[in-house]
Amino acid sequence: MAMKQVANSAIKAIANSGSSSLLARRLHASPGSKKIVGVFYKANEYFTKNPNFVGCVEGALGLRQWLESQGHQYIVTDDKEGPGCELEKHIPDLHVLISTPFHPAYVTAERIKKAKNLQLLLTAGIGSDHVDLKAAAEAGLTVAEVTGSNVVSVAEDELMRILILVRNFVPGYHQVITGDWNVAGIAYRAYDLEGKTVGTIGAGRIGKLLLQRLKPFNCNLLYHDRVKIDPELEKQTGAKFEEDLDAMLPKCDIIVINMPLTEKTRGMFDKDRIAKMKKGVLIVNNARGAIMDTQAVADACSSGHIAGYSGDVWYPQPAPKDHPWRYMPNQAMTPHISGTTIDAQLRYAAGVKDMLERYFKGEDFPEQNYIVKAGELAPQYR
Amino acid sequence: MAMKQVANSAIKAIANSGSSSLLARRLHASPGSKKIVGVFYKANEYFTKNPNFVGCVEGALGLRQWLESQGHQYIVTDDKEGPGCELEKHIPDLHVLISTPFHPAYVTAERIKKAKNLQLLLTAGIGSDHVDLKAAAEAGLTVAEVTGSNVVSVAEDELMRILILVRNFVPGYHQVITGDWNVAGIAYRAYDLEGKTVGTIGAGRIGKLLLQRLKPFNCNLLYHDRVKIDPELEKQTGAKFEEDLDAMLPKCDIIVINMPLTEKTRGMFDKDRIAKMKKGVLIVNNARGAIMDTQAVADACSSGHIAGYSGDVWYPQPAPKDHPWRYMPNQAMTPHISGTTIDAQLRYAAGVKDMLERYFKGEDFPEQNYIVKAGELAPQYR
Repeated sequence: MAMKQVANSAIKAIANSGSSSLLARRLHASPGSKKIVGVFYKANEYFTKNPNFVGCVEGALGLRQWLESQGHQYIVTDDKEGPGCELEKHIPDLHVLISTPFHPAYVTAERIKKAKNLQLLLTAGIGSDHVDLKAAAEAGLTVAEVTGSNVVSVAEDELMRILILVRNFVPGYHQVITGDWNVAGIAYRAYDLEGKTVGTIGAGRIGKLLLQRLKPFNCNLLYHDRVKIDPELEKQTGAKFEEDLDAMLPKCDIIVINMPLTEKTRGMFDKDRIAKMKKGVLIVNNARGAIMDTQAVADACSSGHIAGYSGDVWYPQPAPKDHPWRYMPNQAMTPHISGTTIDAQLRYAAGVKDMLERYFKGEDFPEQNYIVKAGELAPQYR
Repeated sequence: MAMKQVANSAIKAIANSGSSSLLARRLHASPGSKKIVGVFYKANEYFTKNPNFVGCVEGALGLRQWLESQGHQYIVTDDKEGPGCELEKHIPDLHVLISTPFHPAYVTAERIKKAKNLQLLLTAGIGSDHVDLKAAAEAGLTVAEVTGSNVVSVAEDELMRILILVRNFVPGYHQVITGDWNVAGIAYRAYDLEGKTVGTIGAGRIGKLLLQRLKPFNCNLLYHDRVKIDPELEKQTGAKFEEDLDAMLPKCDIIVINMPLTEKTRGMFDKDRIAKMKKGVLIVNNARGAIMDTQAVADACSSGHIAGYSGDVWYPQPAPKDHPWRYMPNQAMTPHISGTTIDAQLRYAAGVKDMLERYFKGEDFPEQNYIVKAGELAPQYR
């Protein structure tokens, strides 16, 4: 704690002087053996089925030998909830916590308070909303993620989900496994994507990749964000900027959520905002579950106002057995998976290794990776 | 029968003289009331759920009033199999049969022999392999389909299926509905599409649209066909021509079947040809089920040589309850649906109406619609 307080006051001093890279060096350069904890999902019998499966507890991002050969302690677990869990045991003396959005270690203000040696929170993937970022900033911690590591993975998955909903895939698959054959039961609500209006709420790294992939489908593309995208990309994709979100909602046949979970976006799609959408709208959300009002989504799926909802994000995660989204009609949900393809795992494992290497050497991270640096939150989380 | 024999001999005479449009006029210009039979899938309770649902028995392609007001008889049914079925009752005196690939009325040589008044076979959609085309040609019948009516629908659906297999979507969805949460059980075999090699076997209308839609995914695109595609499109998509199919197969992570079912392609993907594919290949087939050796596909899915198989085409259709593809591992199948979206139905209904109108007036059809004309099969069916 003493260390953090020093760091924290140093942040303020240095932030004022405009020399934050000096801070990062001081913060990162503490010598000696570090205790690093990684919280990942467990693979069990699946681990041995793929030599590149590094994103699980057993794979441990492929870092064990490298860390241990340098004298660091490396603990990995999937046991992250409740007072007696494995993570909780290591909170008092860990230096670095590596976590993922897929099996999120919720880093609360309380845990941060207990973590007296904690310096660095690394997200293996993208999206650090499972960390209380304000508390982390106040405690002088650095939070960083592997920006860009799985944006392609998520954008591809979004396009899959758009098509799954537009085509009414799931009832068709059900017929196959139940021995049924009823083309009409699928076709009466199966459409082409061509000619439909698709709006992305958020046109950051993932939203832009989605727009590019949607381009050849000849849709009407709309986007809402704080700022306009690059004019060149706007021209290339034909996407039209919608400054007013509420004005965009009724225009869209398909809405894709592509923004981070922040204090501003939490619960943003409640009953009232869903009512502004077109009746029969299809929604894809691979961003974060808590951006939606859970019950409002379930109710609108039941009434038919939402004609289809697909995504891989829930709150909390793992989703409990009685989560209403498991039971609502016309859902095409999965567990949180889109950003943890084997390809993405290899990229974010490499990104975590790179940041640890810099941390040990007292070097800065790539600027775009910082979520909390020198007491400041990255712009998308403010 | 007499009429067809006249027509047939006329074909030969006129084909030799090079004046086939004269023939078509003669063939189509017979005056008076016609008996038209349509065989579609039944919608039952789904019919009233969508005012544009014209592709079913109840919707009857929206042609009833128009046909009956002109004095024609219009019978629609889904009852197409066995000696006592509704279709069989009308075979002896129908003039026109409208059928679809989704609920195919198998027009055998025997049925053609019995259909003494039959002049015209129209396919509402694309793919007339459910008709014995050789027998139709010999009997002097005209066979035509609504070329282009659902190529976009099918190409979009193929891209969906590629992503469903690459992402291992189905096990994820199963977890949701069974109350489970096991990210590893999905992730160990979930990949990005980016960077993978996708080969289409057949680069006709649908294959080309697929290549265009795959372009922004940054894959290695290959295609095999009888002829090279337009150099401009080759440049635009970056797709490489593979003259030798067997040389292309081991290069592909994902194979998409995009060719018609003909005598040459029937059962083409047997045990030996599947063995030439890369271990772990993913296959998408929205073309025709009978292009594959049914048991060879099921066996290769069981062994893991095929890591995923998705498509909407089966043989026969409806697929019986004991069809092995319903039970093989890693399948993402549906009933035959991709070409019968609501958008596609409206297009092929309009196309059928246009051809009937021309038929009544004794005018030619758009050239690309003919599958059998003047005793000759269209090139793709030869």
